[in-house]
Amino acid sequence: MTKLLDTTPAADGFRMPAEFEAHAGCWMLWPERTDNWRQGARPAQVAFAAVATAIATSEPVTVGASAAQYVHARSMLPDAIRVVEMSSNDAWMRDTGPTFVVGNGAIRAVDWSFNAWGGLNGGLYFPWDQDDLVARKVAEIEGCDRYRPPLILEGGSIHVDGEGTLITTEECLTNPNRNPHMDKGQLEILLHEYLGVTQVIWLGKGVVEDETDGHVDNLCAFVKPGEVALTWTDNKRDPQYKVSMDAYERLMESRDAGNRRLKVHKIIQPGPLTRTVTEAAGLDANDTVSQRQPGQRLAASYVNFYIGNSVVVMPLLDPKHDKEAASQLKRLFPRHRLIGVQSREILLGGGNIHCITQQVPVAPRITSPAASQESSQKSSQKSSKSRRAKTGA
Amino acid sequence: MTKLLDTTPAADGFRMPAEFEAHAGCWMLWPERTDNWRQGARPAQVAFAAVATAIATSEPVTVGASAAQYVHARSMLPDAIRVVEMSSNDAWMRDTGPTFVVGNGAIRAVDWSFNAWGGLNGGLYFPWDQDDLVARKVAEIEGCDRYRPPLILEGGSIHVDGEGTLITTEECLTNPNRNPHMDKGQLEILLHEYLGVTQVIWLGKGVVEDETDGHVDNLCAFVKPGEVALTWTDNKRDPQYKVSMDAYERLMESRDAGNRRLKVHKIIQPGPLTRTVTEAAGLDANDTVSQRQPGQRLAASYVNFYIGNSVVVMPLLDPKHDKEAASQLKRLFPRHRLIGVQSREILLGGGNIHCITQQVPVAPRITSPAASQESSQKSSQKSSKSRRAKTGA
Repeated sequence: MTKLLDTTPAADGFRMPAEFEAHAGCWMLWPERTDNWRQGARPAQVAFAAVATAIATSEPVTVGASAAQYVHARSMLPDAIRVVEMSSNDAWMRDTGPTFVVGNGAIRAVDWSFNAWGGLNGGLYFPWDQDDLVARKVAEIEGCDRYRPPLILEGGSIHVDGEGTLITTEECLTNPNRNPHMDKGQLEILLHEYLGVTQVIWLGKGVVEDETDGHVDNLCAFVKPGEVALTWTDNKRDPQYKVSMDAYERLMESRDAGNRRLKVHKIIQPGPLTRTVTEAAGLDANDTVSQRQPGQRLAASYVNFYIGNSVVVMPLLDPKHDKEAASQLKRLFPRHRLIGVQSREILLGGGNIHCITQQVPVAPRITSPAASQESSQKSSQKSSKSRRAKTGA
Repeated sequence: MTKLLDTTPAADGFRMPAEFEAHAGCWMLWPERTDNWRQGARPAQVAFAAVATAIATSEPVTVGASAAQYVHARSMLPDAIRVVEMSSNDAWMRDTGPTFVVGNGAIRAVDWSFNAWGGLNGGLYFPWDQDDLVARKVAEIEGCDRYRPPLILEGGSIHVDGEGTLITTEECLTNPNRNPHMDKGQLEILLHEYLGVTQVIWLGKGVVEDETDGHVDNLCAFVKPGEVALTWTDNKRDPQYKVSMDAYERLMESRDAGNRRLKVHKIIQPGPLTRTVTEAAGLDANDTVSQRQPGQRLAASYVNFYIGNSVVVMPLLDPKHDKEAASQLKRLFPRHRLIGVQSREILLGGGNIHCITQQVPVAPRITSPAASQESSQKSSQKSSKSRRAKTGA
C-alpha cells in the first residue's frame, strides 16, 4: 500500500498545502516520558487530551500511544478519537510526523530524517530511533506513498502558504547540528523539490530560549496567503523585542511566491513566563536529556496555534494576556471557532499546540486521469527498482 | 470512532459471516519470540511472509509487528501489505484478533477475553496481556465498534457457516481452563448472543497433540453452507483415527441451523509428522513457556487453510500427501485459486495458516436506514453510560 518513492514531490506535481486548506484529519502522539513531563506526565496528558478533544470537533483525530500507555491513553481520550499503538521517544508529531504533500488525486508523505533537534551536538535527547520511524508508520496507516529526502528537518521549522511560499529561520535550518554540509542555496533547492515551493523567506532567530533552535512555528505563521501572525512585544528591554523586530523587518521586505508584499499581524506575547521550582522538581532525573532548571525562561508564544477545518486551537498561557491574544486571533480567523486550551504543561515540555499536531490534507481531485496513471506507474517502477536494490531480492 | 457496546450482536441484528463470504481484508501478526520460533524466528518469518503475500493477491493484508521488529517486518513484506506497529505475546491473529460480525451497514468486533489457551492451568505462556489487547487495537484501526463478551474464547475454536450454524469442540470450549463456571447450555447462549448463531454442533476432541486444547479450525471447517472438510486417516492404529471418526459420526448425525444434514469431505492428513532434534534445539530457552521436545508429534492438518476472496491458501507439510490434499481441496473450492505455502515452520510454532489469519468481512448494505439510526443511537447511549460508570467521569 505504501511505496518508498525515489522521485521528488515537485517532479511528480505535488505540493505542501497550507494548514488552512482542507484537512482529512490530524495526528498526535501521547506524552509519556517522565524526564520531560512532570508528575509522571499526567498534567501534560490532560492538556494533550484537551487539545485532541478540541480538534476532534473539527476533523478526525488519531493519537499514537506506546504499548505501555495504550490502555491509559485510550481511557483518557473520547471515543471519537482513534488511538493506535505507536512508539516514539517523545510526543512532538509536528516534528517527527510526515509533512503531507498533495498532487493529482493523492496525498503523499515526506518523511524527513529526524535527529532530536540537533543530534549529539545540542539535541534534546538520545536515542531518537523511534521518533524517526513515526512518519513512516503514519504514512503506512494513511496508506500513502512516501518520500525520504536527504535532509534532517522538523515540520515545526517550516510554514507554507500553499501557493509556493515557505517561511523558515536561519537559526534552525542553517544550524550546523542539522545539515552542516548544505548552505542556504542548497537547502532552498531541497525545499523546492520536496515541498513544491518556489520562494523561501528566511527569518533570523526564533523565540528566545526556544530549545528547538528557533522553530518558525513558535514565532510566525501564515494565517492566509499574503498574511502572517508574528509573536510580538513592545518592551525594548525584553530580548524577544530584537528577535521579533528583526523578523518583522525581514517580512516587510519580502515578496511571496506571487510577488505580493506580506501583511504582518503582531500577536502579543505571554509573560515573559519562567519555570517554577515546583515544576522543575516534578521531573524524573535522566542524564541523557537536557536539564530543565527553575527560573528558566519559557519560549511562550500564542502563535503556536493549530488551524483545523472549523476551529483554531490556541494556547492559554497567561491570564494577563490570553484575552487580548484571543481577540487578535479571532480577528484573523473570522470563520473559525476559536478554542483556547490551557497549555502551560505542553510549554513546560518544550513546545505548544502546533508542535504536537500534524494535519492530514484532503486528497485533491484527479485533474488528469491519464497523467495520474502514468505518474503512478513511473513511480512504482522506480520504487520497486530501488527496493530490489536495497533488499538484494 | 470506536465504542465499547454493552448490547449483544444478536440483539443488535448482527451475525458472524462465514469465512467464504466477501472480505474487506485480512489481519496477521508478525512472529518474533525466539522461545517458540526457532533460529531467531527467521524461518517462521519467511513462512508468514509467504502466507501474507499469497492472501494479498486476493484482499488487502495488514500485518501487526512489534516496535522492535517493525523495520525488519516491513523489509520482509511486499509494499502492498500494510504493516502497523502492534505489540503481542505471540503471532496468532485468529485467536487474539477480533471475530467480526456484520449487521445493518456495518461491521463490529467481538473482542473475546484471551488467556493464552488455558491461563495458568495448562496455557502456553505467561504473560498474555499484549495478546488480549490485539482485538481492541485492530477494531480501533478498522474504526468499528466493539463488544467484549464475558467469555474466554479464541477465534480458532469456532467455525460458522454464516447461516446460523457453529461448529466447535468440547475439548476446548468446556475445558475448565477457559470458562469453568459455564456448562454447554450457558456457552451456547453466549455463542448465540455474540455470534448470531442458532445451532451449535459439538465435536469431541481436536487433532491429536493440538496444544490449543483441540481447536476446531485444525480439525474441521465449513467450505460452504451444509458442507465441511474434516481431517482424516484410514489408519486405525493412528490415535487420530478415533478422533476423526468420532467427529465424522457426530457430524453425520447433526442438523445445521437450516435443518439440513451435513456433507462431510474427508481430507487426508499429513504425516504423522514429528519435531526433529534440530528443530527443538533451535529454540531459545524460557521457563515460562511450555517445552517443545524432539520426537513430539505435531498437530498437522490440511484443514488449517484460509479462504480468501479469490484464493484458498493451504499448508504444504508433507511431500507424500500434499498433492492429494491439494486435489481434494481444489474440488471443494472450484472457483478459488489454490495456493500452497510451505508451512512446517508455522506448524512447529503450534498452529497453521488459519491460526495466523483473521478476515475482515465487507460491511453489508444498509437494509433499513431508520432501524440503523435508531439502533446506533440506542447503542451509543448505552455505551456512553457504561463508559461513565467505568471511568467514574
